[in-house]
Amino acid sequence: MKEVRFFYAPEATITEELPQDEATHAIRVLRLQSGDEIFFMDGKGAFHRAEITLVTNKKCMYRIVETMQQEPTWRGHIHLAIAPTKMMDRVEWMVEKATEIGFDEISFLNCRFSERTKIRTDRIEKIVVSAVKQSHKAWKPIVNEMLDFKNFICQPREGRKFICHCYEEVSKEDFFSLISSVSQEESLHESDDITVLVGPEGDFSIDEVRMALDNGYESVTLGKSRLRTETAGLQAVSMSNLARRI
Amino acid sequence: MKEVRFFYAPEATITEELPQDEATHAIRVLRLQSGDEIFFMDGKGAFHRAEITLVTNKKCMYRIVETMQQEPTWRGHIHLAIAPTKMMDRVEWMVEKATEIGFDEISFLNCRFSERTKIRTDRIEKIVVSAVKQSHKAWKPIVNEMLDFKNFICQPREGRKFICHCYEEVSKEDFFSLISSVSQEESLHESDDITVLVGPEGDFSIDEVRMALDNGYESVTLGKSRLRTETAGLQAVSMSNLARRI
Repeated sequence: MKEVRFFYAPEATITEELPQDEATHAIRVLRLQSGDEIFFMDGKGAFHRAEITLVTNKKCMYRIVETMQQEPTWRGHIHLAIAPTKMMDRVEWMVEKATEIGFDEISFLNCRFSERTKIRTDRIEKIVVSAVKQSHKAWKPIVNEMLDFKNFICQPREGRKFICHCYEEVSKEDFFSLISSVSQEESLHESDDITVLVGPEGDFSIDEVRMALDNGYESVTLGKSRLRTETAGLQAVSMSNLARRI
Repeated sequence: MKEVRFFYAPEATITEELPQDEATHAIRVLRLQSGDEIFFMDGKGAFHRAEITLVTNKKCMYRIVETMQQEPTWRGHIHLAIAPTKMMDRVEWMVEKATEIGFDEISFLNCRFSERTKIRTDRIEKIVVSAVKQSHKAWKPIVNEMLDFKNFICQPREGRKFICHCYEEVSKEDFFSLISSVSQEESLHESDDITVLVGPEGDFSIDEVRMALDNGYESVTLGKSRLRTETAGLQAVSMSNLARRI
């Protein structure tokens, strides 16, 4: 399937019409015509093969010929919650790379030392969709609006929860060792879900770290390297995927 | 040491003068003066604390007060050889992130399907130095000029050598499993060095893959995700560092 170009159609099985952006691309750029074969993912676990039935100036209608339900390539739900960096391009590449590597959900945190307190999640969503198509992912990661740190950590979450930080006075365990060490037997009884928090350029405040610990988050480090926020976010995703891959 | 700003001075113990770029930054931007304390890394494993002894229009002289030899945080020599992407910004961020995470050497390969056959390694070197300073690395990764694929793989290398590729007709093992599985006893007798090859956007040619195997490279995959060249390069470094960390 190396050369197949995918479209993204979340309502694939309902509408039989490509979404506006995708239709424009199909008609104006690829100049697809009635009878041509297309592939798309619905972002919910399936690839579809379809035949184009009608092309107008703006619309591209199709008929699904074959639906191929995909197998997940990692266990559990990997959720990264991160304070976005001051420079948007740094968050954006992180989101692209995390999508390629494979994760399930991203949330943005407004923290005490946040350099950026607003984020255009519509731009993030576009980058995610583009990476989903490029890397042929059957599931599209969920992109959430920004939340205050406290609001986020008070919400109940399945599975294990972690906060990455650099405070030496708070004891930390190694993130990758913790998530890799669950024995086969234990894993049958425990959720594989991971929620991991990464702070802003100036780190979380010590009060935020303590508040997270009080809410069931485990205190962790990503290793001995001093990482930028966006690199830490990507490493957290990469390690989670590696520990949970099937 | 969180707030310490480092300079990079590869000839630190010989010249007692900051390199031109660093001196300009120290004098014009930071407005440092005689008597001020500075820190720098020599890129060969040591941090130095020094006192500025003389500042002129263009020069910044110092006297080393304390030399702090650093402990490595990973075993062995991690060498990534990669075909650079068409878009330079993609290679550049990869190099920045790989330096933050931690590796030892980068080479650029000119392959059959390369989209870019020239690369300005002076720009890459600058990015590496900047990331070394920002992430407080005691060792600076080596940046090599571009080589033809065949030239590169014919050179002798210590340790294990790997080629990442997507051909289904060539059997592959999992890269991370292979480099993680060395038992403690074995590791006493074997070099921890890793050389890993990542191909261009269109992958290596099958002939290149076979040529590498003939030269002692092991055929590997980085996992089930379909990764862009620069993401694959970063994942190869990230996995190597994780498998070799101390």
